[in-house]
Amino acid sequence: MNNLDEIKDWIALCNAKARYCRTLDTKDWDGFRDLFTEDYELDVSDGTGKPVIKGRDAAMASVQSSILTAKTAHQVHTPEITLNGDEAHAIWAMQDRVVWGPDKSLTGYGHYHERWVRQNGEWKIAALKLTRLHMDFQFPAPAA
Amino acid sequence: MNNLDEIKDWIALCNAKARYCRTLDTKDWDGFRDLFTEDYELDVSDGTGKPVIKGRDAAMASVQSSILTAKTAHQVHTPEITLNGDEAHAIWAMQDRVVWGPDKSLTGYGHYHERWVRQNGEWKIAALKLTRLHMDFQFPAPAA
Amino acid sequence: MNNLDEIKDWIALCNAKARYCRTLDTKDWDGFRDLFTEDYELDVSDGTGKPVIKGRDAAMASVQSSILTAKTAHQVHTPEITLNGDEAHAIWAMQDRVVWGPDKSLTGYGHYHERWVRQNGEWKIAALKLTRLHMDFQFPAPAA
Repeated sequence: MNNLDEIKDWIALCNAKARYCRTLDTKDWDGFRDLFTEDYELDVSDGTGKPVIKGRDAAMASVQSSILTAKTAHQVHTPEITLNGDEAHAIWAMQDRVVWGPDKSLTGYGHYHERWVRQNGEWKIAALKLTRLHMDFQFPAPAA
Repeated sequence: MNNLDEIKDWIALCNAKARYCRTLDTKDWDGFRDLFTEDYELDVSDGTGKPVIKGRDAAMASVQSSILTAKTAHQVHTPEITLNGDEAHAIWAMQDRVVWGPDKSLTGYGHYHERWVRQNGEWKIAALKLTRLHMDFQFPAPAA
Repeated sequence: MNNLDEIKDWIALCNAKARYCRTLDTKDWDGFRDLFTEDYELDVSDGTGKPVIKGRDAAMASVQSSILTAKTAHQVHTPEITLNGDEAHAIWAMQDRVVWGPDKSLTGYGHYHERWVRQNGEWKIAALKLTRLHMDFQFPAPAA
């Protein structure tokens, strides 16, 4: 960060990512959707070979189908942000707690790797790739 | 954040909230108490209908009675801060781990919604409301 | 934080600590090593009487022997940073998840207390002391 404008962008990007987590976890889907570009690309494959999800509509549908009935807490930490005019790259440490029911839940750890673009003065996420460090799953015991 | 003074306030508020967590978890009660206004209002009802606790003395007594014998770690993330002169509003993502004993503990997730005021140049919390996303309780199994 | 240069230092220190966590957890040992001074001192004794580890080489060896085969996620929050020219002190809230295997793991909470120095324009950690609030261990049940 080299000057006041870059520091303002740094804080604006932190604010936007805070809204990402809060709108996702409170299921404020309109507020969540507003954080992405129309051509948003979501890559949660993490080495599994799953295809990248292309387009905001498809990404919203995928996220909602995963957690619509779950309680979630996505928390992010210690951004590493690189600014280049109206584009920015960010890496965030992340933790997510996802509870589908009393005997099916996940606590995971990893990083979000993001590309942001400024559109009409507002930062939007154009691409997000999730890499995982570790996931702890709590699943039902198999039927006896 | 529009200018250097606002960015300084943003960092000052982040510092004050860091002290909130550290003094609470290390049970530095004098340092903790110093972070609140005398007319501080604490709302941890989260939809239960519990009354708002009014006044710093009552709030300190309530917090201490909850966790005096527990080990705790309150961690907060990604502030959304709105400044208005000597007043500020903040939303923080939060996680708390509270361990009352080997078979009674809690890991919780939620948000702090706060009103801060500047008194004699120092930011103090005037009101705090906790909303919960999810709580994982570990309680003793009922006696057989 | 009193002026633009101090705010730039504050963000630079946050970035460096973000790299600390990311390089440690992704086992980017060259990147991790680059964050410390040659005379780095690591104190993880936390009241046990264990000696302070002196020197970057010894500290790297100690860290690697602890977690080389483990999956880890070290996450840090809410820095309290004090700047004094080319030296800085920081306190970070921390959480670590360390998984040595399916039945041996740790989730811990505490604070890093650090001294940083600026060398050739880059912030390096000269000393780090870890204090613990609480540790949750998951260990194998004793053999029947």
